[in-house]
Amino acid sequence: MTPPGTPSTDAARRHDPDARGFASDNYAGVHPEVLAAIALANGGHQPAYGADDYTAHLQEVFRRHFGPRAQTFPVFNGTGANVVALQALTDRWSAVVTAGSAHIHTDECGAPERVGGLKLLPVPAPGGRLTPDLVAREAWGFDDEHRARPQVVSLTQATELGTCYTPGEIRAVADFAHERGMTVHMDGSRLANAAASLGLPLAAFTTDAGVDVVSFGGTKNGLLMGEAVVVLDPEAVRGLPYLRKASMQLASKMRFVSVQFEALLAGDLWLRSARHANAMAARLAEGARAVPGVTILHPVQANGVFARMPRDAAERLQKRHRFYFWDEAAGDVRWMCAFDTTEEDVDTFVAALGEEMGR
Amino acid sequence: MTPPGTPSTDAARRHDPDARGFASDNYAGVHPEVLAAIALANGGHQPAYGADDYTAHLQEVFRRHFGPRAQTFPVFNGTGANVVALQALTDRWSAVVTAGSAHIHTDECGAPERVGGLKLLPVPAPGGRLTPDLVAREAWGFDDEHRARPQVVSLTQATELGTCYTPGEIRAVADFAHERGMTVHMDGSRLANAAASLGLPLAAFTTDAGVDVVSFGGTKNGLLMGEAVVVLDPEAVRGLPYLRKASMQLASKMRFVSVQFEALLAGDLWLRSARHANAMAARLAEGARAVPGVTILHPVQANGVFARMPRDAAERLQKRHRFYFWDEAAGDVRWMCAFDTTEEDVDTFVAALGEEMGR
Amino acid sequence: MTPPGTPSTDAARRHDPDARGFASDNYAGVHPEVLAAIALANGGHQPAYGADDYTAHLQEVFRRHFGPRAQTFPVFNGTGANVVALQALTDRWSAVVTAGSAHIHTDECGAPERVGGLKLLPVPAPGGRLTPDLVAREAWGFDDEHRARPQVVSLTQATELGTCYTPGEIRAVADFAHERGMTVHMDGSRLANAAASLGLPLAAFTTDAGVDVVSFGGTKNGLLMGEAVVVLDPEAVRGLPYLRKASMQLASKMRFVSVQFEALLAGDLWLRSARHANAMAARLAEGARAVPGVTILHPVQANGVFARMPRDAAERLQKRHRFYFWDEAAGDVRWMCAFDTTEEDVDTFVAALGEEMGR
Amino acid sequence: MTPPGTPSTDAARRHDPDARGFASDNYAGVHPEVLAAIALANGGHQPAYGADDYTAHLQEVFRRHFGPRAQTFPVFNGTGANVVALQALTDRWSAVVTAGSAHIHTDECGAPERVGGLKLLPVPAPGGRLTPDLVAREAWGFDDEHRARPQVVSLTQATELGTCYTPGEIRAVADFAHERGMTVHMDGSRLANAAASLGLPLAAFTTDAGVDVVSFGGTKNGLLMGEAVVVLDPEAVRGLPYLRKASMQLASKMRFVSVQFEALLAGDLWLRSARHANAMAARLAEGARAVPGVTILHPVQANGVFARMPRDAAERLQKRHRFYFWDEAAGDVRWMCAFDTTEEDVDTFVAALGEEMGR
Repeated sequence: MTPPGTPSTDAARRHDPDARGFASDNYAGVHPEVLAAIALANGGHQPAYGADDYTAHLQEVFRRHFGPRAQTFPVFNGTGANVVALQALTDRWSAVVTAGSAHIHTDECGAPERVGGLKLLPVPAPGGRLTPDLVAREAWGFDDEHRARPQVVSLTQATELGTCYTPGEIRAVADFAHERGMTVHMDGSRLANAAASLGLPLAAFTTDAGVDVVSFGGTKNGLLMGEAVVVLDPEAVRGLPYLRKASMQLASKMRFVSVQFEALLAGDLWLRSARHANAMAARLAEGARAVPGVTILHPVQANGVFARMPRDAAERLQKRHRFYFWDEAAGDVRWMCAFDTTEEDVDTFVAALGEEMGR
Repeated sequence: MTPPGTPSTDAARRHDPDARGFASDNYAGVHPEVLAAIALANGGHQPAYGADDYTAHLQEVFRRHFGPRAQTFPVFNGTGANVVALQALTDRWSAVVTAGSAHIHTDECGAPERVGGLKLLPVPAPGGRLTPDLVAREAWGFDDEHRARPQVVSLTQATELGTCYTPGEIRAVADFAHERGMTVHMDGSRLANAAASLGLPLAAFTTDAGVDVVSFGGTKNGLLMGEAVVVLDPEAVRGLPYLRKASMQLASKMRFVSVQFEALLAGDLWLRSARHANAMAARLAEGARAVPGVTILHPVQANGVFARMPRDAAERLQKRHRFYFWDEAAGDVRWMCAFDTTEEDVDTFVAALGEEMGR
Repeated sequence: MTPPGTPSTDAARRHDPDARGFASDNYAGVHPEVLAAIALANGGHQPAYGADDYTAHLQEVFRRHFGPRAQTFPVFNGTGANVVALQALTDRWSAVVTAGSAHIHTDECGAPERVGGLKLLPVPAPGGRLTPDLVAREAWGFDDEHRARPQVVSLTQATELGTCYTPGEIRAVADFAHERGMTVHMDGSRLANAAASLGLPLAAFTTDAGVDVVSFGGTKNGLLMGEAVVVLDPEAVRGLPYLRKASMQLASKMRFVSVQFEALLAGDLWLRSARHANAMAARLAEGARAVPGVTILHPVQANGVFARMPRDAAERLQKRHRFYFWDEAAGDVRWMCAFDTTEEDVDTFVAALGEEMGR
Repeated sequence: MTPPGTPSTDAARRHDPDARGFASDNYAGVHPEVLAAIALANGGHQPAYGADDYTAHLQEVFRRHFGPRAQTFPVFNGTGANVVALQALTDRWSAVVTAGSAHIHTDECGAPERVGGLKLLPVPAPGGRLTPDLVAREAWGFDDEHRARPQVVSLTQATELGTCYTPGEIRAVADFAHERGMTVHMDGSRLANAAASLGLPLAAFTTDAGVDVVSFGGTKNGLLMGEAVVVLDPEAVRGLPYLRKASMQLASKMRFVSVQFEALLAGDLWLRSARHANAMAARLAEGARAVPGVTILHPVQANGVFARMPRDAAERLQKRHRFYFWDEAAGDVRWMCAFDTTEEDVDTFVAALGEEMGR
């Protein structure tokens, strides 16, 4: 039933709006407050490509969170944010030191290499977290023309394994990097979840901890689509507007990306949603930990739970609830919570887990 | 005043939803039917990255327009669609013959070269339209390792100059290309406007005229954002899913791109909107032509009007209505109409034009 | 018969060392003085990758010709020199304005685009020579993120059509470029021939005329192989050592490239060889001009002659002497002279031309 | 004193032709038999870019060693050979599994990524040697668009650590790769040393062991400069002539590269030189092993010796004889022998080593 006043459309609803799973935080849809913001920004003409009033205002919104020097460049997606940011931080002959588990190394189909000509220097990082010692394994040979010059350390916060760096850990890596003339990039597709987990403002573990550029994630925290390259040290970057366009990440109707971020960050929606998702992950981990035969693999510090369980039980469970294997050979699974995950969703899932493990 | 039942948001309206200009069809916002479709697809979880029910259904929607072999790959923007499509049609050592006025050559900050490693071979094309003779200027040397191999002809329909190819003109170029082992790409960011202008179904001047891949535009015809690579001859392309991801054009919450296209193409919204924009351009051209001292430069066959007028008058007019110079030195201007341009908008503008020319 | 004292080798001579043609100046071999220099540099160990004594000395040799600020980077070939130089002059988002006939656009299989991510903006240039007016066609839009920023003008001296710029013509383009924040690259694969033609030292139409970086050619003037990126304004470039290595143009046994350039440039071999090749071209042009039905197409200002003649006669002549069509459809041919072309070679060729035209 | 009959040259000898060290096999010069071959190929005109008689004949020479299907493409240097070969084996969306110690990952300034857009997946490989188990760590996810598709395994023979794979070890990796639709590339910059070490013909551990393409090294085995991409399975590659040109590795006067390889491979020069260098390394290792406090780190199976010794002693020794630290922090050093290393060189060096260790 279409509510009265709703415009008609030739499109049809094709899914169950009440069905949720634990496969990914980007299986979730758009937060209603974000959708309302999009409607608000609609109508009339606004300059394209970021010259609109929403994008202009967004600069101020981000500065409240990241400090007065922050410069914000909305883009389409996380891979785009990362690759634009890394290009802006580097010369054509540089390399990026990163964790072997980093999204830029494992899940971007080589976009950093292909689009940016970037060389990645992955190092194995327990729990997905780099330390100065780990960075040091590849941060050398700066003046050797045979070696791509290590110019950036890229950290992920929260990590791909659901853990968080403390501000001190980030500061240690940043100091190490800066002492060697390197800069620090942070892949923050789940930065809000980290802030919620640490109980700290966003600047506390970014701007104030020495990070130079953040890829700030919106999509996994309730936006329709949208990420932002947030430059914290403008002197660390070059050519960002050009690199965004040449990397095919410049939205024409940018007002609709920017207003979503305004809905997220002008008030506390970003934090409410992240706290909720984190709480659901904690509840899930607590429930799963009580099931015999299930091991929780990493500290649950954000909205993801990584567990080890017998593979056949996991496969049976997948038939009831959607989620992914993280390491199929080892029987490791990943359960993600989103802004719209409910306590009932979690409890139903944990009960099903118990049943499948009990067979 | 927020209507009752509207969710609250921390974002604020920052623009006049009744202000419109003639700067660009992507200054316009989202068609209400498209916004309604987005809301319809919201709620619940749907697989990310195109494995959702909306993207699956979209295949069928596009096949109704482009024939039973069509394969559709939604992407973020027009530059993305073009560069993904051209990579899928080419080897690493190839070149693309295109009009000197083509968007891929003039307005994409070198994305084809940088992201795709593509060499462009631009040829001067009167009215933005290529012919076999013009293509022939660069379509040679296919087996010479010193020369990037010409593998694709890229046409724009409607052209950047507001003109349209007839089906016969496209067929002539396509036959010429295919006889030489080349393929045909069509940049169709305004393909709907061409269909409306020609009074023909979309397939008539694409699939049926020998085009191999189309970049189908949505954003300029009322979508929030979204374009699609539509493969008409699946044997002409390779690696599209990988190239879309590696080119950073794979949307995670793709359902919200796909449902917009469904709203556009399942019924006749695409055609209604395009016809309207074209009609407004025709009205504007007719009015402007009657103003002494104003020359209309190209046949007005889509939603854009190109005119020559004294530069000072143009600059005064820009202070009253937004539009761009096309060639500042020559005093050439471009006036674009959109799905939401009104007759009153046009008439007001023509009146202002008359006033400024009369001073 | 192997001369006494010649080391044996398992290789065999497979060609006639007395057969010469007019196909290309790189069909010629190595000048004996250059070969002697290679032998001189042989034996013992010398640091690789340019840290040897010959490359160190070469800096001084080039400075004598190009001025005290010149920095020289030997590379393998002309395409390599051009693409390394252009990368060093540009940011990732830039474009290069060049003649449509330029080697970088027509004969490098897209290496500038593929290796350097460079966008080329070719303009039609009569006689292969750019002027400020021609450059101006593409030198605009410097601050528009949609447009690859024009950062370099690339000139060829002598041009691909056998003509030469005067110092004043080069200065005019350089001033135009510098006033707009652009730099000037010169593809000098035949720079020696231009100097011989102009009767000027190399600096007179490079360093002193505002050129920032030269690709200095050796191979076409009697080297075994070797070109050099010669930086005339060190402030115009960045990262050259890294770009040379990353572009696969760093020779390990560089002493053998450098010593060849020393043989060429320490004395007057470069000028003797270029003058000779130019003189042979002039003799050939004079002879051909006297043959009825043959038209010389461009001023013969270097070592190449471009002529128009009936295609069937040209094809018959090709069976007697090697040369290439330049434009097969038009019946345009190119005849190149080298350091080892003899007067007898030329006279025999002109006689054959006369015979074939007379049939 | 110039011998009678030697052509004069303006170049001067600038080094001691009797001074040798242990820094690198490419600190050595040109083998006299190779230099004689270059002279033999000189004189007269020969078609450029590989259409000459020497390159034609070279096909046959390589086939004698690598089997009747081998296709040989001479290039300038090892990085060039590797990057051209890997591009020919891959699509734009692929990845290459390789040892973390591989030259393509550590010493090519990111050329594979920048020139080829290739993503590398390095795995830690003890002794520089991959096994099926090690390859398996990254050889997965072939149909996942988020993951660059692993299409090639790249092995180095002899390895960067002076060890050799047996034919069986290579076959095991090749079978593993082929079963998964992957191909096998071998970086053979020291392939001759491996053959000499194994006492086997070149085909035994390449063509016959399942390798698809070899980068065959000449420079480190006595050539002036020259490497070759040798395609063993022509069905595994695409576009090689174009990729060589677009990667700036196409020599114009190719006859002078090809004739060097003929000198190397038509008889047994390749094997004589490699055996000698290997024997010198073995002698050096034997001597060094007897010095208290020096540890030889890897089996000495080619022409390199890796040792651990106190850093201060190593630094004192470097003042007497040239060599490099391999891992400065650990005090690991590398001593390389070449075709021209003498027994006396080795014995003098070992004596010096003993003296410095004895202080």
